[in-house]
Amino acid sequence: MIEGGGDMKFGVLGTGMVGRAIASKLVSRGHHVMMGARARGNIPATEWAAAAGNNARAGSFSEAASFGDILFNCVHGAHTLEALEAAGHDALRGKILIDIANPMDYSQGDPPLLLYCNDDSLGERIQRAFPEVRVVKTLNTVGFPSMVDGTRIPGEHDMFVCGNDVAAKAEVSLLLREEFRWSNVIDLGNISSARATEMLMPLFLRLWKTLGTFDFNIQVVVKPKA
Amino acid sequence: MIEGGGDMKFGVLGTGMVGRAIASKLVSRGHHVMMGARARGNIPATEWAAAAGNNARAGSFSEAASFGDILFNCVHGAHTLEALEAAGHDALRGKILIDIANPMDYSQGDPPLLLYCNDDSLGERIQRAFPEVRVVKTLNTVGFPSMVDGTRIPGEHDMFVCGNDVAAKAEVSLLLREEFRWSNVIDLGNISSARATEMLMPLFLRLWKTLGTFDFNIQVVVKPKA
Repeated sequence: MIEGGGDMKFGVLGTGMVGRAIASKLVSRGHHVMMGARARGNIPATEWAAAAGNNARAGSFSEAASFGDILFNCVHGAHTLEALEAAGHDALRGKILIDIANPMDYSQGDPPLLLYCNDDSLGERIQRAFPEVRVVKTLNTVGFPSMVDGTRIPGEHDMFVCGNDVAAKAEVSLLLREEFRWSNVIDLGNISSARATEMLMPLFLRLWKTLGTFDFNIQVVVKPKA
Repeated sequence: MIEGGGDMKFGVLGTGMVGRAIASKLVSRGHHVMMGARARGNIPATEWAAAAGNNARAGSFSEAASFGDILFNCVHGAHTLEALEAAGHDALRGKILIDIANPMDYSQGDPPLLLYCNDDSLGERIQRAFPEVRVVKTLNTVGFPSMVDGTRIPGEHDMFVCGNDVAAKAEVSLLLREEFRWSNVIDLGNISSARATEMLMPLFLRLWKTLGTFDFNIQVVVKPKA
């Protein structure tokens, strides 16, 4: 599917740093990308598309969702469900939605909390609200420059995928490897395992402060079986 | 303090597999250990002490807390505060309490949830309820055989310490290195960072299921500064 590159259409929902990093990387790999925003004419999306070349365009959430064969949710976690409602069930139906957001809650100060966790997650909320979408949770456990280049941090370290649709996870794992150079991908299970990766955020934020950089990731080190 | 070994007194609160693993390791290192239970005459504690030799004894929570210069909380998270109340503020005062429990909630089935997280943690609850105790959260992120031997899992991987008392964290980090062979210890910050390590539990449990073993740990891999 991705071999040879350049023949896929992606919709990237969200116009922030994360969305622009994902969209630019996909364009640089020869793919066609539409960045979706709340409304057509959104300035960051329009400017991004103008700068990113012929394969880049900007539109509404709904237009980007319709355009892409595979979609990325790069909207802030707190606004994700609203953005997906704006995209519309018809535009989303049957598509793979790669959810890379975390449900951060900045209302209580620093460090931020999670809007929900423990018995729920953003990934699960999306899948419940949009049962016709093939949700795959991934990339939410690293800083955005690492999302699009798994080799930015040298050595062995791991990316997680979570989702109910096994074929969708396989397709996303291939995309992670081929486009974003993530060679170690661990399938954590169904979409409820999104809780486990979203609940890594407090550790991520503490380590960011402690290490003075967000250019880190975790590796799962396993004792070999005797 | 620990160099040469065998000259310290520890109180281990809790008689389960975790408590016995910690207590046995400390005795094997030549230290004096009292295992504390709800009441004197507790069978697992008495049997452990009988088997573990001259440096091992059993008592109540209060007796074990009074006995030890350094204490380990190995009581289930849901019962920890109650056990510490039973130990008593006087017996705990001024001591280092190494909290290795997680506030697991098995009431909703499998996988278990956390009794509290996000804006609170067991480590913080202990420190709030017992301000006269020097709480250090650590060891709660690995399986119990690894707690007492950081080299059980080969290669580089990390242990976290959290707590308000910098000197207590330094003493515990030394103890982790000298007695339990943990060479990589990351100080995550004050006791509120216990949230970050307790919230690793969902990932730990998912990985346990996925990998088929709990003999694993995580390594924080950092991109070297340019």
